[in-house]
Amino acid sequence: MKILVTGGAGFIGSHLCESLIERGQEVWCVDNLYLGSEENIRHCGNSDRFHFEKFDMLDTARLNSLFKQSDIDTVFHLAANSDIQQGSVNHEIDLKLTFLTTYEVLQAMRRHKVSRIFFSSSSAIFGDTGKNKFHEDFGPARPCSLYGAAKLAAEAYLSVFAKMFGFQVWILRFPNVVGERSTHGVVHDFIRRLKENPARLEVLGNGLQRKPYLYVKDLVQAILLIVEKAKDSPAIYHAAGEGLTTVREIAEMVVDEMGLKGIPVLYQSANGGWVGDVPFYQYDNSKIADLGFKPKYNSTEAVRVAIQKTLGKK
Amino acid sequence: MKILVTGGAGFIGSHLCESLIERGQEVWCVDNLYLGSEENIRHCGNSDRFHFEKFDMLDTARLNSLFKQSDIDTVFHLAANSDIQQGSVNHEIDLKLTFLTTYEVLQAMRRHKVSRIFFSSSSAIFGDTGKNKFHEDFGPARPCSLYGAAKLAAEAYLSVFAKMFGFQVWILRFPNVVGERSTHGVVHDFIRRLKENPARLEVLGNGLQRKPYLYVKDLVQAILLIVEKAKDSPAIYHAAGEGLTTVREIAEMVVDEMGLKGIPVLYQSANGGWVGDVPFYQYDNSKIADLGFKPKYNSTEAVRVAIQKTLGKK
Repeated sequence: MKILVTGGAGFIGSHLCESLIERGQEVWCVDNLYLGSEENIRHCGNSDRFHFEKFDMLDTARLNSLFKQSDIDTVFHLAANSDIQQGSVNHEIDLKLTFLTTYEVLQAMRRHKVSRIFFSSSSAIFGDTGKNKFHEDFGPARPCSLYGAAKLAAEAYLSVFAKMFGFQVWILRFPNVVGERSTHGVVHDFIRRLKENPARLEVLGNGLQRKPYLYVKDLVQAILLIVEKAKDSPAIYHAAGEGLTTVREIAEMVVDEMGLKGIPVLYQSANGGWVGDVPFYQYDNSKIADLGFKPKYNSTEAVRVAIQKTLGKK
Repeated sequence: MKILVTGGAGFIGSHLCESLIERGQEVWCVDNLYLGSEENIRHCGNSDRFHFEKFDMLDTARLNSLFKQSDIDTVFHLAANSDIQQGSVNHEIDLKLTFLTTYEVLQAMRRHKVSRIFFSSSSAIFGDTGKNKFHEDFGPARPCSLYGAAKLAAEAYLSVFAKMFGFQVWILRFPNVVGERSTHGVVHDFIRRLKENPARLEVLGNGLQRKPYLYVKDLVQAILLIVEKAKDSPAIYHAAGEGLTTVREIAEMVVDEMGLKGIPVLYQSANGGWVGDVPFYQYDNSKIADLGFKPKYNSTEAVRVAIQKTLGKK
């Protein structure tokens, strides 16, 4: 395969580029370096099957020219705003970086007769369902963050490109993903705050939010598995580490791994951590398990490994 | 109420403006006259509670200035591309006229502290479900037209504005709507073609597509009912005339009402009429019935009345 990874210098994108090169693929990595960094992909540069171009996916002239010059046959579209909280401060970023980039990538693909696309979606499309273990066909999807709305809007267009224009579309709805190179999220946040002030940890919300976490390298295995094996279109999958982990457990693990046991950890009374947060969700993972997906780490193990990797301990 | 009706000079918008004025409301009607016409709202001009401004909803300067100058408290956002087939020829129109207008209206409302919005959605968000009588919470929504994708994307953002910013959002998913001033659709199409050539009628598809039709004035009653009575947010409703009507029945009724009985009506072998068409769907109407909605005409009666009105017979 000749592959375009959009957002390829980001947290998840850089791990994906790595795995694709290891598997012998030729990879064009495009990133505007808004959240990504060249540092993330420096090691990929050792391969002559890796090409990096810095531009924004809304720069359609650059995008068209890339498709024209290369024989790209498959796109992994990971370029997006990945910080849900940031999207409630700056309203434009989810619309532009997540939704409109998807629209422009789809239109450019159609123009250049490229019709295979993987898309990184999210549990945030569902909003706060209150349901236990929802599967891929669950509905209705009623997002409560601009991040979730942009992902759902993108899924709507991907559905049409699958059904109307014959695209092979794979959608994986990510859970909370953790690991080295992460740029935000609860693990990243706690470590950053404790480095600033190791005397105490203040937690947003009551710490009882329970969610499934997945280690980034397990996520990349899930992505590659569905692109290899799923033949329906749109092929939609959920993936998460087994079990759920509370924010309190994460706080304790971070404090423990940083050697700060005994410091005060302070909680608030509110349930959700911030506006647009969904305090509880749980995927039914049986569909991707049927494809053969077995993550190396369960949810709580994934968090601990991510903490250790981020601290450079492993 | 002081009301903004976007797309107010269009087919459905003009009937809505009429009813709002009759009920004593003050109405600002905005339309870019892309599908609408001043002819449609000429009679509304007799009321000094009716104001018409011609501009595009993506002209945010004009939109902001309108909110600033008026005390508008409620928006009926009907501006959209309403021609599904046209959207598969010109890919930009659903994105711009339907989705991005909704996004810009929501952002302008937030800036000017206006938080009540009615949105005209569509059964097209669901795609071809193959299901019988789906209710408002049905999922997943997998559209198969760019029109449906744009409506679903708009619904996603409306959900967030309801949940994150406290907007009162009403969504009515329209069925096939028929009546005088319609600019496209099967009734309009058959009449136009038979006026051009009364010797025969060629039908796209096999004519077995079965859908529920609603007369435009019944639809306006449904809109006003949910805005008056529904208090949840987003409040989502379906409405359609009772029963289903096939394209064959519509063809026969048009031929009959035009006095052309006996001319050949020619069908094709394909099931759907055109790319992106959903050949069968049926709403569960019980939720809006519980609010007290009783349409005057069932589906097939609605079609006949629309034919008669369009021909100027009634």
